Amino acid sequence: MRKKISIGKKILSANEEYALENSLFLSERGKLCLNMISSPGSGKTTILSRTISELKNKIRIGVIEGDIQTDLDAEKIRATGAPAIQINTNGACHLSAAQISTALKQLPLDDLDLIFIENVGNLVCPSAFQLGETGKIAVLSVPEGDDKPIKYPAIFAKSKALLINKIDMLQTVGQADFDIERVKLDVRKLNKTVEIFPISAKTGEGMCNWYDWLLRTVKTPNQP
Amino acid sequence: MRKKISIGKKILSANEEYALENSLFLSERGKLCLNMISSPGSGKTTILSRTISELKNKIRIGVIEGDIQTDLDAEKIRATGAPAIQINTNGACHLSAAQISTALKQLPLDDLDLIFIENVGNLVCPSAFQLGETGKIAVLSVPEGDDKPIKYPAIFAKSKALLINKIDMLQTVGQADFDIERVKLDVRKLNKTVEIFPISAKTGEGMCNWYDWLLRTVKTPNQP
Repeated sequence: MRKKISIGKKILSANEEYALENSLFLSERGKLCLNMISSPGSGKTTILSRTISELKNKIRIGVIEGDIQTDLDAEKIRATGAPAIQINTNGACHLSAAQISTALKQLPLDDLDLIFIENVGNLVCPSAFQLGETGKIAVLSVPEGDDKPIKYPAIFAKSKALLINKIDMLQTVGQADFDIERVKLDVRKLNKTVEIFPISAKTGEGMCNWYDWLLRTVKTPNQP
Repeated sequence: MRKKISIGKKILSANEEYALENSLFLSERGKLCLNMISSPGSGKTTILSRTISELKNKIRIGVIEGDIQTDLDAEKIRATGAPAIQINTNGACHLSAAQISTALKQLPLDDLDLIFIENVGNLVCPSAFQLGETGKIAVLSVPEGDDKPIKYPAIFAKSKALLINKIDMLQTVGQADFDIERVKLDVRKLNKTVEIFPISAKTGEGMCNWYDWLLRTVKTPNQP
Protein backbone atom coordinates (compact mmCIF):
# COMPACT_ATOMS: atom_id res chain seq x y z
CA MET A 1 0.00 0.00 0.00
CA ARG A 2 1.22 3.45 -0.89
CA LYS A 3 1.39 6.12 1.77
CA LYS A 4 0.40 9.66 0.96
CA ILE A 5 2.99 12.07 2.29
CA SER A 6 2.10 15.71 2.68
CA ILE A 7 5.12 17.96 2.41
CA GLY A 8 3.11 21.01 3.48
CA LYS A 9 4.62 23.22 0.78
CA LYS A 10 3.21 24.31 -2.54
CA ILE A 11 5.47 23.30 -5.41
CA LEU A 12 5.67 26.20 -7.83
CA SER A 13 5.65 25.74 -11.59
CA ALA A 14 8.51 27.33 -13.56
CA ASN A 15 6.13 30.12 -14.56
CA GLU A 16 5.10 30.75 -10.95
CA GLU A 17 8.78 30.86 -9.89
CA TYR A 18 9.51 33.56 -12.47
CA ALA A 19 6.29 35.40 -11.56
CA LEU A 20 7.33 35.47 -7.89
CA GLU A 21 10.78 36.77 -8.83
CA ASN A 22 9.23 39.49 -11.04
CA SER A 23 6.83 40.46 -8.28
CA LEU A 24 9.68 40.85 -5.76
CA PHE A 25 11.82 42.70 -8.32
CA LEU A 26 9.00 45.22 -8.93
CA SER A 27 7.92 45.72 -5.33
CA GLU A 28 11.52 46.23 -4.12
CA ARG A 29 11.76 49.09 -6.63
CA GLY A 30 8.27 50.43 -5.80
CA LYS A 31 7.10 50.09 -9.42
CA LEU A 32 3.50 49.59 -10.46
CA CYS A 33 3.08 46.99 -13.22
CA LEU A 34 -0.32 46.44 -14.87
CA ASN A 35 -1.07 43.46 -17.13
CA MET A 36 -3.68 44.45 -19.75
CA ILE A 37 -5.80 41.59 -21.14
CA SER A 38 -8.57 41.53 -23.76
CA SER A 39 -9.76 40.04 -27.05
CA PRO A 40 -7.86 41.03 -30.20
CA GLY A 41 -8.93 44.45 -31.45
CA SER A 42 -10.58 45.79 -28.29
CA GLY A 43 -8.25 48.80 -28.39
CA LYS A 44 -5.44 48.06 -25.90
CA THR A 45 -2.69 49.80 -27.92
CA THR A 46 -4.87 52.85 -28.62
CA ILE A 47 -5.74 53.12 -24.91
CA LEU A 48 -2.05 52.91 -23.95
CA SER A 49 -0.91 55.42 -26.61
CA ARG A 50 -3.49 57.99 -25.52
CA THR A 51 -2.82 57.39 -21.81
CA ILE A 52 0.96 57.84 -22.27
CA SER A 53 0.53 61.04 -24.33
CA GLU A 54 -1.97 62.65 -21.98
CA LEU A 55 -0.14 61.75 -18.75
CA LYS A 56 3.40 62.40 -19.95
CA ASN A 57 3.87 65.47 -17.74
CA LYS A 58 2.63 63.58 -14.68
CA ILE A 59 4.00 60.02 -14.79
CA ARG A 60 6.59 58.16 -16.83
CA ILE A 61 5.24 54.99 -18.47
CA GLY A 62 7.05 52.08 -20.17
CA VAL A 63 5.39 49.23 -22.05
CA ILE A 64 6.08 45.54 -22.65
CA GLU A 65 4.20 44.46 -25.78
CA GLY A 66 3.18 40.84 -26.36
CA ASP A 67 2.21 39.70 -29.84
CA ILE A 68 2.31 36.44 -31.74
CA GLN A 69 3.94 38.18 -34.70
CA THR A 70 5.12 41.71 -35.73
CA ASP A 71 6.38 44.69 -33.72
CA LEU A 72 3.58 46.99 -34.91
CA ASP A 73 2.32 47.69 -31.40
CA ALA A 74 5.73 48.54 -29.92
CA GLU A 75 6.28 50.95 -32.84
CA LYS A 76 2.97 52.68 -32.06
CA ILE A 77 3.99 53.04 -28.39
CA ARG A 78 7.48 54.35 -29.28
CA ALA A 79 5.82 56.99 -31.49
CA THR A 80 4.46 58.53 -28.24
CA GLY A 81 8.02 58.85 -26.91
CA ALA A 82 7.69 56.04 -24.32
CA PRO A 83 10.10 53.08 -24.18
CA ALA A 84 8.59 49.80 -25.42
CA ILE A 85 9.95 46.25 -25.53
CA GLN A 86 8.30 43.90 -28.06
CA ILE A 87 7.99 40.20 -27.26
CA ASN A 88 6.93 37.89 -30.11
CA THR A 89 5.48 34.64 -28.82
CA ASN A 90 5.66 32.98 -32.30
CA GLY A 91 2.35 31.20 -31.94
CA ALA A 92 1.97 30.99 -28.16
CA CYS A 93 -1.34 32.35 -26.89
CA HIS A 94 -0.08 34.24 -23.81
CA LEU A 95 3.01 35.89 -22.35
CA SER A 96 5.08 33.95 -19.81
CA ALA A 97 6.69 35.27 -16.63
CA ALA A 98 10.14 34.31 -17.98
CA GLN A 99 9.60 36.58 -20.99
CA ILE A 100 8.57 39.42 -18.66
CA SER A 101 11.65 38.83 -16.49
CA THR A 102 13.91 39.42 -19.51
CA ALA A 103 11.91 42.40 -20.79
CA LEU A 104 11.85 44.16 -17.38
CA LYS A 105 15.67 44.23 -17.44
CA GLN A 106 15.65 45.84 -20.91
CA LEU A 107 13.44 48.77 -19.82
CA PRO A 108 14.99 51.91 -18.23
CA LEU A 109 13.18 51.11 -14.96
CA ASP A 110 14.80 53.87 -12.86
CA ASP A 111 13.18 56.44 -15.15
CA LEU A 112 9.68 54.89 -14.98
CA ASP A 113 6.76 55.10 -12.53
CA LEU A 114 4.52 52.57 -14.26
CA ILE A 115 5.02 49.58 -16.55
CA PHE A 116 2.15 48.31 -18.68
CA ILE A 117 2.21 44.79 -20.08
CA GLU A 118 0.00 44.49 -23.15
CA ASN A 119 -0.68 40.77 -23.33
CA VAL A 120 -1.44 38.75 -26.50
CA GLY A 121 -5.00 39.49 -27.70
CA ASN A 122 -6.90 36.61 -26.10
CA LEU A 123 -9.68 36.76 -23.52
CA VAL A 124 -8.98 33.25 -22.23
CA CYS A 125 -5.40 32.00 -21.79
CA PRO A 126 -3.51 35.09 -20.52
CA SER A 127 -5.78 35.27 -17.47
CA ALA A 128 -4.43 31.90 -16.27
CA PHE A 129 -0.74 32.89 -16.20
CA GLN A 130 0.69 35.10 -13.44
CA LEU A 131 3.47 37.35 -14.73
CA GLY A 132 4.40 38.93 -11.39
CA GLU A 133 2.30 42.00 -12.21
CA THR A 134 0.83 44.25 -9.50
CA GLY A 135 -2.62 43.87 -11.04
CA LYS A 136 -4.60 42.93 -14.12
CA ILE A 137 -6.64 45.35 -16.27
CA ALA A 138 -9.41 43.88 -18.44
CA VAL A 139 -10.62 45.63 -21.58
CA LEU A 140 -14.00 44.88 -23.17
CA SER A 141 -15.06 46.84 -26.26
CA VAL A 142 -18.69 47.65 -27.07
CA PRO A 143 -18.83 45.84 -30.47
CA GLU A 144 -17.86 42.54 -28.75
CA GLY A 145 -21.30 42.40 -27.11
CA ASP A 146 -22.48 42.51 -23.51
CA ASP A 147 -22.51 38.73 -22.91
CA LYS A 148 -18.72 38.43 -22.62
CA PRO A 149 -18.42 38.65 -18.80
CA ILE A 150 -20.73 35.67 -18.31
CA LYS A 151 -19.22 33.70 -21.20
CA TYR A 152 -15.56 34.41 -20.32
CA PRO A 153 -15.71 35.09 -16.56
CA ALA A 154 -12.08 34.42 -15.49
CA ILE A 155 -10.45 37.69 -16.51
CA PHE A 156 -13.36 39.79 -15.26
CA ALA A 157 -13.19 38.03 -11.88
CA LYS A 158 -9.45 38.68 -11.47
CA SER A 159 -9.04 42.28 -12.65
CA LYS A 160 -8.38 45.40 -10.57
CA ALA A 161 -10.05 47.54 -13.23
CA LEU A 162 -12.24 47.03 -16.30
CA LEU A 163 -12.13 49.48 -19.20
CA ILE A 164 -15.31 49.35 -21.30
CA ASN A 165 -13.84 50.80 -24.51
CA LYS A 166 -15.41 52.18 -27.73
CA ILE A 167 -18.40 53.75 -25.95
CA ASP A 168 -18.57 56.10 -28.98
CA MET A 169 -20.07 53.03 -30.74
CA LEU A 170 -22.87 52.44 -28.20
CA GLN A 171 -25.51 53.94 -30.46
CA THR A 172 -24.30 52.13 -33.62
CA VAL A 173 -24.19 48.76 -31.83
CA GLY A 174 -27.53 49.35 -30.07
CA GLN A 175 -28.68 48.59 -26.53
CA ALA A 176 -29.99 45.14 -27.49
CA ASP A 177 -26.39 44.03 -28.20
CA PHE A 178 -24.57 46.11 -25.59
CA ASP A 179 -26.40 47.15 -22.43
CA ILE A 180 -23.68 48.82 -20.35
CA GLU A 181 -25.68 48.47 -17.11
CA ARG A 182 -25.99 44.73 -17.71
CA VAL A 183 -22.18 44.50 -18.12
CA LYS A 184 -21.59 46.37 -14.86
CA LEU A 185 -24.05 44.14 -13.02
CA ASP A 186 -22.60 40.90 -14.41
CA VAL A 187 -19.02 41.99 -13.67
CA ARG A 188 -19.88 43.06 -10.10
CA LYS A 189 -21.32 39.58 -9.46
CA LEU A 190 -17.88 38.13 -10.37
CA ASN A 191 -15.79 40.81 -8.70
CA LYS A 192 -17.03 43.14 -5.95
CA THR A 193 -13.97 45.40 -5.88
CA VAL A 194 -13.27 45.98 -9.59
CA GLU A 195 -13.21 49.61 -10.78
CA ILE A 196 -15.20 50.06 -14.00
CA PHE A 197 -14.40 52.85 -16.47
CA PRO A 198 -16.54 53.35 -19.60
CA ILE A 199 -14.20 55.06 -22.07
CA SER A 200 -13.51 55.86 -25.70
CA ALA A 201 -9.79 55.87 -26.41
CA LYS A 202 -10.66 57.32 -29.83
CA THR A 203 -12.67 60.38 -28.68
CA GLY A 204 -11.19 60.68 -25.17
CA GLU A 205 -14.59 60.40 -23.44
CA GLY A 206 -14.33 59.01 -19.90
CA MET A 207 -10.53 58.79 -19.95
CA CYS A 208 -10.09 61.31 -17.08
CA ASN A 209 -11.55 58.88 -14.51
CA TRP A 210 -9.14 56.18 -15.68
CA TYR A 211 -6.24 58.66 -15.44
CA ASP A 212 -7.25 59.69 -11.89
CA TRP A 213 -7.32 56.05 -10.83
CA LEU A 214 -3.89 55.41 -12.42
CA LEU A 215 -2.34 58.46 -10.73
CA ARG A 216 -3.74 57.40 -7.34
CA THR A 217 -2.56 53.82 -7.89
CA VAL A 218 0.98 54.80 -8.94
CA LYS A 219 1.39 56.42 -5.50
CA THR A 220 0.64 53.13 -3.69
CA PRO A 221 1.81 50.49 -6.19
CA ASN A 222 1.55 47.56 -3.82
CA GLN A 223 -2.14 48.10 -3.07
CA PRO A 224 -3.77 48.91 -6.40
CA MET B 1 26.38 6.32 -28.27
CA ARG B 2 22.66 6.36 -28.88
CA LYS B 3 21.29 5.28 -32.22
CA LYS B 4 18.44 7.19 -33.80
CA ILE B 5 15.81 4.75 -35.08
CA SER B 6 13.27 5.97 -37.60
CA ILE B 7 10.02 4.02 -37.38
CA GLY B 8 8.65 5.70 -40.51
CA LYS B 9 5.24 6.35 -38.96
CA LYS B 10 3.79 9.47 -37.46
CA ILE B 11 2.64 8.92 -33.91
CA LEU B 12 -0.69 10.65 -33.47
CA SER B 13 -1.65 12.56 -30.35
CA ALA B 14 -4.91 11.59 -28.63
CA ASN B 15 -6.54 14.67 -30.19
CA GLU B 16 -5.30 13.73 -33.67
CA GLU B 17 -6.63 10.17 -33.22
CA TYR B 18 -10.10 11.50 -32.40
CA ALA B 19 -9.87 14.04 -35.25
CA LEU B 20 -9.06 11.28 -37.72
CA GLU B 21 -11.99 9.21 -36.43
CA ASN B 22 -14.35 12.21 -36.75
CA SER B 23 -13.09 12.93 -40.24
CA LEU B 24 -13.77 9.34 -41.37
CA PHE B 25 -17.15 9.32 -39.60
CA LEU B 26 -18.20 12.49 -41.48
CA SER B 27 -16.83 11.56 -44.90
CA GLU B 28 -18.41 8.08 -44.80
CA ARG B 29 -21.75 9.81 -44.29
CA GLY B 30 -21.03 12.53 -46.90
CA LYS B 31 -21.54 15.31 -44.36
CA LEU B 32 -19.91 18.73 -44.60
CA CYS B 33 -18.58 19.99 -41.25
CA LEU B 34 -17.22 23.54 -40.92
CA ASN B 35 -15.27 24.74 -37.87
CA MET B 36 -15.85 28.48 -37.31
CA ILE B 37 -13.08 30.35 -35.49
CA SER B 38 -12.76 34.01 -34.44
CA SER B 39 -12.18 36.41 -31.56
CA PRO B 40 -14.98 36.72 -28.98
CA GLY B 41 -17.76 38.98 -30.20
CA SER B 42 -16.99 38.95 -33.93
CA GLY B 43 -20.54 37.71 -34.62
CA LYS B 44 -20.27 33.93 -35.13
CA THR B 45 -23.63 33.11 -33.51
CA THR B 46 -25.44 35.90 -35.38
CA ILE B 47 -23.94 34.71 -38.69
CA LEU B 48 -25.05 31.14 -37.97
CA SER B 49 -28.57 32.13 -36.86
CA ARG B 50 -29.15 34.22 -39.98
CA THR B 51 -27.63 31.58 -42.27
CA ILE B 52 -29.83 28.81 -40.80
CA SER B 53 -33.00 30.91 -41.06
CA GLU B 54 -32.39 32.07 -44.62
CA LEU B 55 -31.28 28.66 -45.96
CA LYS B 56 -33.82 26.52 -44.12
CA ASN B 57 -35.76 25.62 -47.26
CA LYS B 58 -32.55 24.62 -49.07
CA ILE B 59 -30.26 22.80 -46.61
CA ARG B 60 -30.60 21.37 -43.13
CA ILE B 61 -28.01 22.67 -40.68
CA GLY B 62 -27.01 21.48 -37.18
CA VAL B 63 -24.62 23.24 -34.81
CA ILE B 64 -22.10 22.21 -32.15
CA GLU B 65 -21.52 25.19 -29.86
CA GLY B 66 -18.30 25.56 -27.85
CA ASP B 67 -18.18 27.98 -24.93
CA ILE B 68 -16.24 28.22 -21.72
CA GLN B 69 -19.46 28.81 -19.78
CA THR B 70 -23.23 29.12 -20.44
CA ASP B 71 -25.52 27.64 -23.09
CA LEU B 72 -26.62 31.05 -24.40
CA ASP B 73 -25.36 30.38 -27.92
CA ALA B 74 -27.04 26.97 -28.28
CA GLU B 75 -30.31 28.56 -27.11
CA LYS B 76 -30.00 31.24 -29.83
CA ILE B 77 -29.41 28.54 -32.47
CA ARG B 78 -32.35 26.42 -31.23
CA ALA B 79 -34.59 29.50 -31.52
CA THR B 80 -34.08 29.23 -35.32
CA GLY B 81 -35.43 25.66 -35.23
CA ALA B 82 -32.06 23.96 -35.85
CA PRO B 83 -30.64 21.30 -33.52
CA ALA B 84 -27.72 22.50 -31.38
CA ILE B 85 -25.43 20.71 -28.93
CA GLN B 86 -23.71 22.90 -26.34
CA ILE B 87 -20.22 21.96 -25.10
CA ASN B 88 -18.88 23.85 -22.06
CA THR B 89 -15.10 23.69 -21.87
CA ASN B 90 -15.07 25.01 -18.26
CA GLY B 91 -12.02 27.18 -18.78
CA ALA B 92 -10.32 25.45 -21.71
CA CYS B 93 -9.53 27.79 -24.58
CA HIS B 94 -10.52 25.53 -27.50
CA LEU B 95 -12.72 22.55 -28.39
CA SER B 96 -11.12 19.10 -28.57
CA ALA B 97 -11.76 16.37 -31.13
CA ALA B 98 -12.98 14.05 -28.34
CA GLN B 99 -15.70 16.56 -27.43
CA ILE B 100 -16.74 16.77 -31.10
CA SER B 101 -16.83 12.97 -31.35
CA THR B 102 -19.40 12.83 -28.52
CA ALA B 103 -21.43 15.78 -29.84
CA LEU B 104 -21.62 14.38 -33.40
CA LYS B 105 -23.38 11.31 -32.02
CA GLN B 106 -25.95 13.48 -30.23
CA LEU B 107 -26.99 15.34 -33.41
CA PRO B 108 -29.68 13.88 -35.74
CA LEU B 109 -27.05 13.46 -38.47
CA ASP B 110 -29.28 11.60 -40.95
CA ASP B 111 -31.50 14.69 -41.13
CA LEU B 112 -28.63 17.15 -41.70
CA ASP B 113 -26.63 18.31 -44.73
CA LEU B 114 -24.20 20.53 -42.89
CA ILE B 115 -22.77 20.71 -39.36
CA PHE B 116 -21.22 23.92 -38.08
CA ILE B 117 -18.87 23.88 -35.12
CA GLU B 118 -18.75 27.26 -33.39
CA ASN B 119 -15.45 27.13 -31.54
CA VAL B 120 -14.60 29.01 -28.30
CA GLY B 121 -14.06 32.72 -29.04
CA ASN B 122 -10.30 32.84 -29.46
CA LEU B 123 -8.27 33.79 -32.51
CA VAL B 124 -5.23 31.80 -31.39
CA CYS B 125 -5.61 28.36 -29.79
CA PRO B 126 -8.53 26.77 -31.72
CA SER B 127 -6.57 27.06 -34.98
CA ALA B 128 -3.96 24.62 -33.62
CA PHE B 129 -6.38 21.75 -32.87
CA GLN B 130 -7.84 19.58 -35.64
CA LEU B 131 -11.38 18.45 -34.85
CA GLY B 132 -11.87 16.26 -37.93
CA GLU B 133 -13.77 19.05 -39.67
CA THR B 134 -14.01 19.30 -43.46
CA GLY B 135 -12.72 22.87 -43.34
CA LYS B 136 -12.19 25.94 -41.16
CA ILE B 137 -14.04 29.26 -41.53
CA ALA B 138 -12.40 32.38 -40.08
CA VAL B 139 -14.44 35.40 -39.03
CA LEU B 140 -12.90 38.86 -38.61
CA SER B 141 -15.14 41.78 -37.66
CA VAL B 142 -14.51 45.35 -38.77
CA PRO B 143 -14.18 46.89 -35.25
CA GLU B 144 -11.29 44.50 -34.48
CA GLY B 145 -9.05 46.41 -36.90
CA ASP B 146 -7.33 45.51 -40.15
CA ASP B 147 -4.00 44.43 -38.62
CA LYS B 148 -5.31 41.09 -37.32
CA PRO B 149 -4.27 38.87 -40.27
CA ILE B 150 -0.61 39.88 -39.90
CA LYS B 151 -0.70 39.76 -36.09
CA TYR B 152 -2.58 36.42 -35.83
CA PRO B 153 -1.73 34.70 -39.14
CA ALA B 154 -2.39 31.02 -38.30
CA ILE B 155 -6.17 30.90 -38.65
CA PHE B 156 -6.15 33.08 -41.79
CA ALA B 157 -3.57 30.79 -43.39
CA LYS B 158 -5.60 27.64 -42.69
CA SER B 159 -9.18 28.67 -43.56
CA LYS B 160 -11.28 27.69 -46.54
CA ALA B 161 -13.26 30.92 -46.25
CA LEU B 162 -12.97 34.23 -44.41
CA LEU B 163 -16.07 36.18 -43.43
CA ILE B 164 -15.32 39.89 -42.89
CA ASN B 165 -18.31 40.70 -40.66
CA LYS B 166 -19.92 43.97 -39.48
CA ILE B 167 -19.24 45.81 -42.75
CA ASP B 168 -22.19 48.05 -41.72
CA MET B 169 -19.64 49.57 -39.29
CA LEU B 170 -17.01 50.40 -41.93
CA GLN B 171 -17.88 54.09 -41.94
CA THR B 172 -18.07 54.38 -38.13
CA VAL B 173 -14.71 52.63 -37.67
CA GLY B 174 -13.07 54.56 -40.52
CA GLN B 175 -10.67 53.48 -43.25
CA ALA B 176 -7.61 54.34 -41.16
CA ASP B 177 -8.54 51.53 -38.76
CA PHE B 178 -10.11 49.09 -41.21
CA ASP B 179 -9.02 49.13 -44.84
CA ILE B 180 -10.85 46.16 -46.34
CA GLU B 181 -8.50 46.02 -49.37
CA ARG B 182 -5.51 45.80 -47.03
CA VAL B 183 -7.15 42.84 -45.24
CA LYS B 184 -7.79 41.02 -48.52
CA LEU B 185 -4.20 41.61 -49.65
CA ASP B 186 -2.68 40.46 -46.33
CA VAL B 187 -4.89 37.35 -46.20
CA ARG B 188 -4.10 36.41 -49.81
CA LYS B 189 -0.38 36.51 -48.98
CA LEU B 190 -1.04 33.87 -46.29
CA ASN B 191 -3.56 31.83 -48.23
CA LYS B 192 -3.94 31.89 -52.02
CA THR B 193 -7.12 29.80 -52.18
CA VAL B 194 -9.23 31.32 -49.38
CA GLU B 195 -12.67 32.65 -50.36
CA ILE B 196 -13.33 36.09 -48.84
CA PHE B 197 -16.86 37.32 -48.13
CA PRO B 198 -17.45 40.85 -46.76
CA ILE B 199 -20.79 40.59 -44.93
CA SER B 200 -23.05 42.10 -42.32
CA ALA B 201 -24.96 39.41 -40.43
CA LYS B 202 -26.99 42.26 -38.88
CA THR B 203 -28.21 43.94 -42.10
CA GLY B 204 -27.84 40.93 -44.43
CA GLU B 205 -25.49 42.76 -46.83
CA GLY B 206 -23.20 40.39 -48.74
CA MET B 207 -24.71 37.23 -47.21
CA CYS B 208 -25.94 35.87 -50.58
CA ASN B 209 -22.37 35.23 -51.81
CA TRP B 210 -21.65 33.28 -48.61
CA TYR B 211 -24.87 31.28 -49.08
CA ASP B 212 -23.99 30.47 -52.70
CA TRP B 213 -20.58 29.19 -51.62
CA LEU B 214 -22.16 27.09 -48.82
CA LEU B 215 -24.74 25.55 -51.18
CA ARG B 216 -22.01 24.69 -53.73
CA THR B 217 -19.79 23.25 -50.99
CA VAL B 218 -22.54 21.10 -49.44
CA LYS B 219 -22.82 19.30 -52.78
CA THR B 220 -19.13 18.26 -52.69
CA PRO B 221 -18.39 18.05 -48.95
CA ASN B 222 -15.00 16.40 -49.31
CA GLN B 223 -13.54 19.17 -51.51
CA PRO B 224 -14.72 22.44 -49.95
